[in-house]
Amino acid sequence: MTIDDPQALAEVTAAFHEYERALMADDIPAMDRLFHDAPTTVRYGVGEVLYGIDEIREFRKGRGGSPQRRLGRVAITTYGPDLATANAEFFREGSERRGRQSQNWVRFADGWKVVAAHVSLEGTSS
Amino acid sequence: MTIDDPQALAEVTAAFHEYERALMADDIPAMDRLFHDAPTTVRYGVGEVLYGIDEIREFRKGRGGSPQRRLGRVAITTYGPDLATANAEFFREGSERRGRQSQNWVRFADGWKVVAAHVSLEGTSS
Repeated sequence: MTIDDPQALAEVTAAFHEYERALMADDIPAMDRLFHDAPTTVRYGVGEVLYGIDEIREFRKGRGGSPQRRLGRVAITTYGPDLATANAEFFREGSERRGRQSQNWVRFADGWKVVAAHVSLEGTSS
Repeated sequence: MTIDDPQALAEVTAAFHEYERALMADDIPAMDRLFHDAPTTVRYGVGEVLYGIDEIREFRKGRGGSPQRRLGRVAITTYGPDLATANAEFFREGSERRGRQSQNWVRFADGWKVVAAHVSLEGTSS
């Protein structure tokens, strides 16, 4: 299995940043295009658990946008031609508490999509 | 791409529960066998961010075991023959606060391994 094939890595890195731009702009159609349209897609957010694209869409419509944030360390790795993990630290405006975002990307016929995401703020207990 | 091929799903579900047993028993060698031995493996825990298997091993040695917990809803999905996501809710003893664990599993020549994991306790803000 090829790790970090340059083309796959470039593609999914571009998709990762496209999602970040969409999130910051609250561009819901763009976010939606980058998530896999299926009942199996999961998103664990800071304060919610969402199973399936329908729950994810409902959450986004009602959210009124994400808090603005800047990215910290970003670690993206591809495994074979069709799979990637993207793990990123972030810091929200006005807070020094570290956030963490993990995404699992899969390449489908219509492009790279997030099939699972988990966002949290770092806590004090292990 | 085949979603939830029965054999792949059965294999990775067994690996998921093997990891859970190892975690509850603080069986560090068993946990170690189920994580991909590479600098690209990432684990975001409740209170720490760990990059690479060396940081993950150091954390486990110093941790003194995970808090005991019971699992809630578990959602495991396979994408093709070699990739799976496992998302699980959990509740630690003495706490009703919901925990969430996301794992990204990849099948290598020596079996299914976690390449990225993210564990957090649900917060109040989105």
